[in-house]
Amino acid sequence: MQISAVDFFYAAMPVVTLDADGSQDALLVRVRSADGAEGWGECEASPLVSIAAFVTPRSHGVCQPVAASVIGERLESPADIARLSENVRRNSMDLLQAAHTWSGVEMALWDLLGTQLGAPVWQLLGYKQNIAKDPYASLLFGGTPEETFERGRAAVEAGYGAVKFGWGGFGAGSLDADQAQLRAAREGVSEAKLMVDAGQIWGEDVDAAAARIPLLEEVNALWLEEPFSPYAYLAHAELARRSPQVALAGGEASHNPEMAKNLIRFGGIRFVQIDTGRVGGIGASKEIADFAAAEGVTYVNHSFTSHLALAASLHSFAGQATSTLCEFPAGLSELAKAVTATALVPDEQWQVSAPTAPGIGIAVNLDAVAPYLREVELRVDGAVLNAAAMSVGK
Amino acid sequence: MQISAVDFFYAAMPVVTLDADGSQDALLVRVRSADGAEGWGECEASPLVSIAAFVTPRSHGVCQPVAASVIGERLESPADIARLSENVRRNSMDLLQAAHTWSGVEMALWDLLGTQLGAPVWQLLGYKQNIAKDPYASLLFGGTPEETFERGRAAVEAGYGAVKFGWGGFGAGSLDADQAQLRAAREGVSEAKLMVDAGQIWGEDVDAAAARIPLLEEVNALWLEEPFSPYAYLAHAELARRSPQVALAGGEASHNPEMAKNLIRFGGIRFVQIDTGRVGGIGASKEIADFAAAEGVTYVNHSFTSHLALAASLHSFAGQATSTLCEFPAGLSELAKAVTATALVPDEQWQVSAPTAPGIGIAVNLDAVAPYLREVELRVDGAVLNAAAMSVGK
Repeated sequence: MQISAVDFFYAAMPVVTLDADGSQDALLVRVRSADGAEGWGECEASPLVSIAAFVTPRSHGVCQPVAASVIGERLESPADIARLSENVRRNSMDLLQAAHTWSGVEMALWDLLGTQLGAPVWQLLGYKQNIAKDPYASLLFGGTPEETFERGRAAVEAGYGAVKFGWGGFGAGSLDADQAQLRAAREGVSEAKLMVDAGQIWGEDVDAAAARIPLLEEVNALWLEEPFSPYAYLAHAELARRSPQVALAGGEASHNPEMAKNLIRFGGIRFVQIDTGRVGGIGASKEIADFAAAEGVTYVNHSFTSHLALAASLHSFAGQATSTLCEFPAGLSELAKAVTATALVPDEQWQVSAPTAPGIGIAVNLDAVAPYLREVELRVDGAVLNAAAMSVGK
Repeated sequence: MQISAVDFFYAAMPVVTLDADGSQDALLVRVRSADGAEGWGECEASPLVSIAAFVTPRSHGVCQPVAASVIGERLESPADIARLSENVRRNSMDLLQAAHTWSGVEMALWDLLGTQLGAPVWQLLGYKQNIAKDPYASLLFGGTPEETFERGRAAVEAGYGAVKFGWGGFGAGSLDADQAQLRAAREGVSEAKLMVDAGQIWGEDVDAAAARIPLLEEVNALWLEEPFSPYAYLAHAELARRSPQVALAGGEASHNPEMAKNLIRFGGIRFVQIDTGRVGGIGASKEIADFAAAEGVTYVNHSFTSHLALAASLHSFAGQATSTLCEFPAGLSELAKAVTATALVPDEQWQVSAPTAPGIGIAVNLDAVAPYLREVELRVDGAVLNAAAMSVGK
């Protein structure tokens, strides 16, 4: 089939706060073939900028809009998606945002292809099995230790066997403040696995990070996530040496597979966390999952948006036997909940799996999203560049 | 002073081709203080997307528009620029394009600050000397070896003692075709230094690149530039091992200092090429120049746009005694030539230096750019986000 249209849907909560909650807006992508079949994906993040990267006028031969590598192309097999990925990398080499834009488009192409071939994406990726994962509740630290305690307790009461807390000022204040938060978290989650996300708070300051390691050991944290900038390999490696018990985790900022591989090679992380909506899509995520498995590093999805993005992430590492954890956004906005017609729900063993329906296997509910849609118009010299997208859903 | 306004000017040639000529469009940035002083910078590349990254609605706390870290801030000293750089890194962590947008804004802040303090930027950076550089003519390979020969000959006849050829299909075809181009280049430039830019043509394929090394040795090429993707450190390192004579060069894609440092640390490059309009501006470029000098690696500017960007680049490494080469775009578009009121011209020793006038020290000629300006309007729910920028210059 031929890819005939790509439309973007920018949705946002009425009020977008400065919280680190990535589900406050969403950029959905619909890809359609000439014969009317469609597939859906989701870009992370900054909807307006990612739309601009799809429709912008070209700057030169290797700074072309993402659209130039997609519209009108053939889509018959996974090899076509890999070919288009390579074309985007080449033709949009100097357009930094292209990777984020392409990620959602790529997802939608897998969805479209799977739907047409009658197969779930994990099968198209070559996986023989769809292995259920243990979801961990991904939560923000509370404003107070008491609030953190309550959030943790609620998560384990809901059924989670693992909980991650992050952001909320962790690492930016005193050691005592961090210790109080960590102890409250451990108390709240009881015997569950506990992970901590520092959100790059220490930049490249290894000593600042290392000062928290004893506190993390005390509460038996499984991992410390994103202590540093995603390019600070040497800082990661040094902290890894100074933290034999608490593993380092990272990789969510990767906007291509090589970036994640380098964090594994040179940074000494033991969990690699990939956002399928940023890294180049499902194919790029699968490439990293295979690499991580070969290196003895555990692949984990990074998901803090809708269950469409979550499902796409699950396909990427569905067949990886050694990757058994799954980030499960447990505090999504009303918008993010509205995106999909159904939600991924842990089964009776409190596990989640990639959908088995064709494609990504989870339907977008455009009617439910409609109240959140924002109308976008990008004009250059009076001409509207995103004509198709802006007319839809309003 | 207080930063009160940032305006963007998107200019483009009437026809933008698929050539690798980065001077076919331009994104100029004007920063103004509350008391009416102004400074100018230039972003590289993709103007519409970079404007969007400045004005987009926020997605969450660390996915804010670049404007959020700039407008209303104080600017009194270089430390303020470093502080704003750090704020952009933090507040726009998940907005990939932010680095390109910030680069032009940062340049304009140095220009504004230097103008106000009556000092050239290189002095504000702490350099004691402004060391003249040997410009190399940066050219694209001709469509035929004969054309390449003519371009090379014209460059040395103009006075250049070094010439670089790149792109134009080099590395994508047969070894014979590449050899014919290289021999023509060497013949054309005679005894001048000769460099070759592969434009990432080999992805991560070390053997394909290594096959060209004997051809490059035959013509005594000083460096081979960007053989691979900028993240393919291991491929770079392996090729470096297999090419003891011809040095590897790279780094132009770096969108933060750490990325360039990693290419030095892990990729074995001997020339690091930095685009001040992408890497985070003049301060980020200076950071890399200092690092390179300490590592025994030669810093070179990457410049293929206007002389505003070229001058900004020159300030960044003006005082580095071991970095004596300067990329000098010798085939700029009419637009790029129109951007500045004056051009940087090699002196009687055929050397160029950073301007000594306050700030970046080269004036923008907005009247001359006016015929090339493109009117941009970014609307979300009907409201124009870039109201100031769109009203200017038309």
